[in-house]
Amino acid sequence: MNIRFYHARILTMDGGCVLQEGELWTSGNRIAYIGPGKDAKDIVWDEQIDCQGNVLMPGFKNAHTHSGMTAMRSFADDMPLQEWLNTKIFPLEAKMTEQDNYDLTKLAILEYLTTGVTGIFDMYLSPKDIARACVEMGMRCVLVSGLNKFGPSVAEMENRYNSLNGMHPLITYRMGVHAEYTCDKALLEEVSALIHKYRAPLFAHLSETRLETDECLERYGMTPPQFFDSLGLFDFGGGGYHCVYFTEADMDLFARKGLHAVTNPGSNTKLASGVAPIGRFLEKGINVAIGTDGPSSNNCLDMFREMFLVTGLAKLLQKDASAVDAHEVLKMATVNGARAMGLSEADVLAEGKLADLIMIDLHQPNMQPLNNITKNIVYSGSKQNVKLTMIDGKILYRDGQFLNGVDAEAIYAKANEIIARLSA
Amino acid sequence: MNIRFYHARILTMDGGCVLQEGELWTSGNRIAYIGPGKDAKDIVWDEQIDCQGNVLMPGFKNAHTHSGMTAMRSFADDMPLQEWLNTKIFPLEAKMTEQDNYDLTKLAILEYLTTGVTGIFDMYLSPKDIARACVEMGMRCVLVSGLNKFGPSVAEMENRYNSLNGMHPLITYRMGVHAEYTCDKALLEEVSALIHKYRAPLFAHLSETRLETDECLERYGMTPPQFFDSLGLFDFGGGGYHCVYFTEADMDLFARKGLHAVTNPGSNTKLASGVAPIGRFLEKGINVAIGTDGPSSNNCLDMFREMFLVTGLAKLLQKDASAVDAHEVLKMATVNGARAMGLSEADVLAEGKLADLIMIDLHQPNMQPLNNITKNIVYSGSKQNVKLTMIDGKILYRDGQFLNGVDAEAIYAKANEIIARLSA
Repeated sequence: MNIRFYHARILTMDGGCVLQEGELWTSGNRIAYIGPGKDAKDIVWDEQIDCQGNVLMPGFKNAHTHSGMTAMRSFADDMPLQEWLNTKIFPLEAKMTEQDNYDLTKLAILEYLTTGVTGIFDMYLSPKDIARACVEMGMRCVLVSGLNKFGPSVAEMENRYNSLNGMHPLITYRMGVHAEYTCDKALLEEVSALIHKYRAPLFAHLSETRLETDECLERYGMTPPQFFDSLGLFDFGGGGYHCVYFTEADMDLFARKGLHAVTNPGSNTKLASGVAPIGRFLEKGINVAIGTDGPSSNNCLDMFREMFLVTGLAKLLQKDASAVDAHEVLKMATVNGARAMGLSEADVLAEGKLADLIMIDLHQPNMQPLNNITKNIVYSGSKQNVKLTMIDGKILYRDGQFLNGVDAEAIYAKANEIIARLSA
Repeated sequence: MNIRFYHARILTMDGGCVLQEGELWTSGNRIAYIGPGKDAKDIVWDEQIDCQGNVLMPGFKNAHTHSGMTAMRSFADDMPLQEWLNTKIFPLEAKMTEQDNYDLTKLAILEYLTTGVTGIFDMYLSPKDIARACVEMGMRCVLVSGLNKFGPSVAEMENRYNSLNGMHPLITYRMGVHAEYTCDKALLEEVSALIHKYRAPLFAHLSETRLETDECLERYGMTPPQFFDSLGLFDFGGGGYHCVYFTEADMDLFARKGLHAVTNPGSNTKLASGVAPIGRFLEKGINVAIGTDGPSSNNCLDMFREMFLVTGLAKLLQKDASAVDAHEVLKMATVNGARAMGLSEADVLAEGKLADLIMIDLHQPNMQPLNNITKNIVYSGSKQNVKLTMIDGKILYRDGQFLNGVDAEAIYAKANEIIARLSA
């Protein structure tokens, strides 16, 4: 497929938030050209798209999610994290089949497409089924193990690491554990041995709540990041999800080791977990990415909501309206996410990079006037402005319609059927 | 016009968040029938709309805004309130013409329609021009004076009160002052005399920032609400916008006098002003409504963002995930707003009430599965779910299109032209 986008404002995110006017061409799954209009008479176009001055930019990277939790959206709200997990979520998950996970992931993928997400960092049950849904629907996915004392075994994680990496160009798999509070020390030591065998980075939920941090301090005399580091779990990089209750020493560790902090403000807000010190992370030079967390804690998978919350909560926390500028947030939602996820070919718009991109509709009242388009995206943008989502050179969503043969109503029906069965 | 909505889930908001399946009929600008499908062979329908199971509910009331500030969206971000007002906003506003205000209000109205707003409480320059834009575009509008020491005079406010009330069924006008810090005591006493002459409620920005509250305490030894009350300004009701730095005594005053507190979490977040104690307001039985504030402090006019922030910030402030339940928020955004604005005929869906309603599209991934539709609206809903907006019996927005002969591109062009001139 050769696709020509013309009359575009292009935000490459390559070195800042600067827009250039011109064209972007894709060939197969790659970006073939970015620049002013030029002669293309040798090229047979499959489609030529008049962007009408709209913005082309890298797709958002949702750097922490649990896609298959769509079944539990608005199933149990208004409860704190531990109670919510133990009394509502874990009992349902115990009944969830691999096929359920596949079907529920498909529902999440639809939502990602509507909000311009072109890559997800997904920690959930049966990763082969997440991969199956993503490949079928065309979503780029970095799977990450959510290993804990209930499963999978370390041997199984190793097996998945070897079988899922390389299974399909859209899929990679990373080692990870759910969290300190769901693993005992011996298990984490086993994981560390595997990490060292493969020289692999490791990701985990880290310091999400005050309770988690306090209990870890009590158990080991160390915060979760320090404890993980003491076991060598971060010897080859990686990072943490949530990262709310980080001490200065935790941040210094992240900075020193080049670890990635993925912030999840929607979930941390709705569960009353707290506000991550994002301004401090930036001051320390830590790579901060953004994730929605799962759809039953958030409850939506909307990168625009997350972007506003990242900057808004930082402004409130620091009592400073200039804290965490919109442009930093746009980097977090795109290039920083790609960096955390190891998607070095899907980070910015440039010739030779993977064609994972979105079109932002400026012809809507919330984006007018055009005083500052990039600030508009963060401060007044909405998923309704996502006019087109392309992953790996394929247009999967456009003008509110799912393409690629997707039957959205069938996916909705299946999700309703699953939650009815699981909660019966 | 007789319009029949069928296959609907109807959320009347009359006594709670309960959905009923059935039909809703409008006749002219009123709701003629709500209930199960029944014989209607005597009625000539202008249109019959298959709602496909989607939700019909009262339109949102944006209970505090400054519509004409659309010109300054993303014009000056990342600054605290006082500096932002004094160095960026006031100098531009000094150059704004009445025609500008009319044109810029039209841009805001487009955005209101996309987010399901069917009534606005608008405090801005030249109210007759706001009224002109609203009447032309079909928006219901409660104007409120932003009187301060730079204008208008009290005599002019009285004149507006008499001429704008009754000018058109969509328009009412309420007395108000901008804020304590922009009025001196003699002026407020004059206003109080007028309030007493007409036995009218009064609205004002109240305790929006710590600075405002501290300075008022220093000047008068009283908080802004107490000071206003001491002048008799609340003798006939009314209320405040923002209401962030409220003491227990301020809240008791509001409860005792039946005053309305309009919360503006998006603006208070972006300007780092603080978080209003909404949970305490509810405990005291105060009527809480929601407003977006103006589009240059927020920077969008999106009631879904505001709804999530109202509950989310309350959860964070109270460190309690059960704080300010979604259903309370839905009331604030609809019936409570109508109550604050004096729109007693446009509050709930019931026979004989004004036909100000919206359709929420459930056939989108963020609203599935249907575990709890009303919680979905608050926790995972987005303006993209607004499928139809009807005001006064007229469908003004449907499936992403503005109806009623609106030329959106011309309105965008005008807004860009205005900000270019004002900032030259």
